[in-house]
This record gives sequence, structure tokens and C-alpha cells, in this order.
Amino acid sequence: MAPRIHDSKVAVRYAETDQMGIAHHSVYWMWFEIGRTDFLKALGFPYAQLEAQGILMAVLDVHCRYWASVVYDEELTVRTRLTDVRRLKVTFEYDLIKPDGRVAAKASTVLGCITREGRPSPMPPPLLQALGSALSPAAD
Amino acid sequence: MAPRIHDSKVAVRYAETDQMGIAHHSVYWMWFEIGRTDFLKALGFPYAQLEAQGILMAVLDVHCRYWASVVYDEELTVRTRLTDVRRLKVTFEYDLIKPDGRVAAKASTVLGCITREGRPSPMPPPLLQALGSALSPAAD
Amino acid sequence: MAPRIHDSKVAVRYAETDQMGIAHHSVYWMWFEIGRTDFLKALGFPYAQLEAQGILMAVLDVHCRYWASVVYDEELTVRTRLTDVRRLKVTFEYDLIKPDGRVAAKASTVLGCITREGRPSPMPPPLLQALGSALSPAAD
Amino acid sequence: MAPRIHDSKVAVRYAETDQMGIAHHSVYWMWFEIGRTDFLKALGFPYAQLEAQGILMAVLDVHCRYWASVVYDEELTVRTRLTDVRRLKVTFEYDLIKPDGRVAAKASTVLGCITREGRPSPMPPPLLQALGSALSPAAD
Repeated sequence: MAPRIHDSKVAVRYAETDQMGIAHHSVYWMWFEIGRTDFLKALGFPYAQLEAQGILMAVLDVHCRYWASVVYDEELTVRTRLTDVRRLKVTFEYDLIKPDGRVAAKASTVLGCITREGRPSPMPPPLLQALGSALSPAAD
Repeated sequence: MAPRIHDSKVAVRYAETDQMGIAHHSVYWMWFEIGRTDFLKALGFPYAQLEAQGILMAVLDVHCRYWASVVYDEELTVRTRLTDVRRLKVTFEYDLIKPDGRVAAKASTVLGCITREGRPSPMPPPLLQALGSALSPAAD
Repeated sequence: MAPRIHDSKVAVRYAETDQMGIAHHSVYWMWFEIGRTDFLKALGFPYAQLEAQGILMAVLDVHCRYWASVVYDEELTVRTRLTDVRRLKVTFEYDLIKPDGRVAAKASTVLGCITREGRPSPMPPPLLQALGSALSPAAD
Repeated sequence: MAPRIHDSKVAVRYAETDQMGIAHHSVYWMWFEIGRTDFLKALGFPYAQLEAQGILMAVLDVHCRYWASVVYDEELTVRTRLTDVRRLKVTFEYDLIKPDGRVAAKASTVLGCITREGRPSPMPPPLLQALGSALSPAAD
């Protein structure tokens, strides 16, 4: 029932390019962040609402492999899946896909639930259950 | 007695360039922000400390004139002056100076004191007094 | 016939917020840039294509007045108009509009045509003519 | 003889914080970029000069583990080492160190030499030799 894969659209902004003429590698993390917050929103848990309830998701670990560069004004798809759910952390995986279908980058992020004071905190049961129902198998 | 002009050093980061091969115009605001927070720190009022006391300075109005582009790895001086101090707002002016002394940009920002809830708030008297003692005449 | 006003949609990204809990003032320039490049695209002159032809538009002067802060995930409209066209430079004006219709910021940017070497260059006649036909009266 | 470890200093900019009150995870990549370009400069190969010679270093793969958050105005050390050198790619490793000596993050990046046209290109022998002489053992 729950969305197992969520596609978000982003276009490369001019400010996101660097003098190599391609999008800077640091910008991809903003796109992946859009991917996972769209995923959570589609699941019924907008991140703004989670934060308002005191549930923060801190980034613990990230990995990205860049396969092909992307350029100004290119319209990209961020395909997001959830591949691991624990009481204290979750793993999202992302494909960044070019208009012609080629994968420009593959990434994963591990996020941990924390309180406003920065202490690890178990996810609230409704969120945990919704996430559990939206799991995909990991890519590798 | 108080510092009337404060010089900060910044170097253009690779990520701050765009495909035109120069620093993107939006980046300058981070440099001017470094300029005014260094200015406040030199005056004895580190911004982090002001915020911890509930004093936030919100940007109300900005203007920048770009005279010459700046490039990757260029070492720039942000020369900051305070040109107007009111109970509710202050104006900083900035020159961005190239290694050869040429001015790459001139800017000004008006900031207003607000509470955590976003309401305008008069500056605390010690800050107001210190700022008043550090005033420079406006450029134009 | 030509579009005199162009509306672009942007949503505030999490990475665009700062610890004041609002979008950082430097981010607005990326939104206004989206506004004017969308405007040019609607006019039949995608900026990527202009650059490929050796026509660069450098930012010469910017001004922004911030009326109300904007927050994470807020969906904003960038309303762009072209208010001045000269042989060597153009002026765009922008309203950043909140979902409830309130104006969060008003800005203007002056851009100059330059060559790859950074020399001022007159706009090609077809572009100049198209821009001329899309002019709006200036706000003030 | 060559520098095997290079320390760079960065301070967290206000614009680099997010509404969680800490530096956004995407910003770390700009700091690591400063680390490796400072490393190359100390080795006698400023990156600006390499690019001017047509040698571009594209980011192929990145990994970061975030151990502790960092906050506005915190002064951090980026400790950079070079842990692998091949004809076509190099691996840098980074520790991001807090003022009290604790490690806030550990990261690695793999970069590949490419031409302006984006084709893989072997490193010029003098660069390859200098890098080889500056190798450190990998952390893990």
C-alpha cells in the first residue's frame, strides 16, 4: 500500500554548477534530501511536522558514487527507496537519473532519530510502522 | 577606541565558482556575513553569544554593486564598517577588495533586532552603546 | 504577445534554512535566478543556449528588501518582470510570494552582457528585440 | 620530505547552519575540498594551476561518517591525508577535528583525472611522482 519508491524531480540550478561546468558534488546531497523528505511526505509524515513534534533525523553516514556528471538546466529524477529500518536509524538509497534514463549517481544515507538535545531517540511507533511497510530490498 | 573598520580574509572556494568561471553572486553575502560577525566579535559581542541571549539580527535589506569578478582561490579582504545605528536596526557597509587593492564589490545590509518569535526588539543598551561608539560615516 | 510576467515555483529546501529557523537571505538570489532564467526560457531564449552561443549575462547590481521570512517546505512563487532593457544591460524585478499571497521579498537585479573574456558586449538583435517586447513598467 | 598530513582551518559560517542548529551535512564536502586543495598546494601543485594546464580532478566516490555535530562559529581542523595513488585516480582521507580534539567526522573521496572534455586521463608524471611521495597508509 505504502509507496516503496518515490520519484522527485529536480533541475540543476546555475548556482549549483562550478567552473568545471558541471554540478558540484556537494549539491547532490540537497537533491537526495529532497528525495527522502518527499518520500516521507508521500508516506504521510512530512518532515516539517516530525520536527514540530520534536523528532529530528540527523545524518549519520553517507556514501555516493558519481557515474556521470550533470549540467546546468538538466532535469533529473531522484528515485528514493528505503532499504533498512531500525528502532534508532533508517537507510535510504537513491538513484539520480538523467533525462535519457542513464544513472548519474547512486547514493545511500543513514539517518538517526534524535531529540532536540541531540540524544538518540527511538522512532515513534506510528512512524516506525509506516516506514517498515515501505521497505525495499537494498541494492547491494 | 572601538574598531571602526574591520578587515576579514576570505578565499574563494571551488564550490563557490559557477560555470562562468567566477564566484557566483550569491556567495558574496556569506562573505559580508563573515565581515559583520567578525566586526561584532572584535567589538566584544560575538554573534553566537548574542543569539544565546535571545538577540537575533535579521537581514531586512541588502544592496550590492559588483565591480569586478573574483575567481577560484583568490584571497579577498572584506572591509566592514558600521554606518548607521538605530534602536531597532543597524546598517553595515562592505568593500570586497582584491589582492591588488582593487574593489571587486561594494555592499550594504540593514539588519533589525528581533526576538526568537520574530518580533522587532530594541537592542540591549550595552550593545547599542558599543555599536554607537564604532560608527563610521556612510560611503554615499 | 511575449510573456510580460513569469511565475516560477520554488519550495524552501531544508539545506536552505539556517539556525534562525528561516531561509538564509543568500538563498533568495538562487530563486530570483530561477525566475529570470525561466522568464528567458518562456521568451524562447534558454540561458544555456545563450551561453553556448557565447552570450554571458553577468550580475552587476542587486537589491533586495525582505518583508517576511520564509520557512522550510514553504511553496513560494517567484514573479519576474523585465523593467529595463538597454543595449548592454537589462533589469529584472522580482516578487517572492507566499502561499497566502503575501509578498515575502521584493528584489531587482541588473545584468550586463559580456563575452567569455569578460568584456561588455551588446546583446544580439533578436534577443534585444524579444526582451524589448516583454518589458513591464518598473515598480518604483 | 613531502607533506604527508596537511591541516587546514575552517570556521562554521552562519549560512552553513540549518534549522537543526548545526552545520548541514552537505557543507562538509566544501571543507574536505579545502583540505585536499590545501594539501595539493603544499605539495607544489595548486589546483588552479593544474586546471589551467587542462588537468581536472573529478569526484568519483565519496563517503562520510558523521560522529558529532558542529555548530556556528566552531573552529575546525580538516586533517587531510592521501591514501591511494593510481595512474588515473587518487584517494584522500579526512578527519574533521573539533577544538577539543574530538573527531566530528571521517571521510574519504576518490578523484579521477579527466580532460576538459570529461575523458579519463593519466596524471602527468611530475604530479604522479609528487603524490606518490606523499602517501599515507589508509585508515581502514
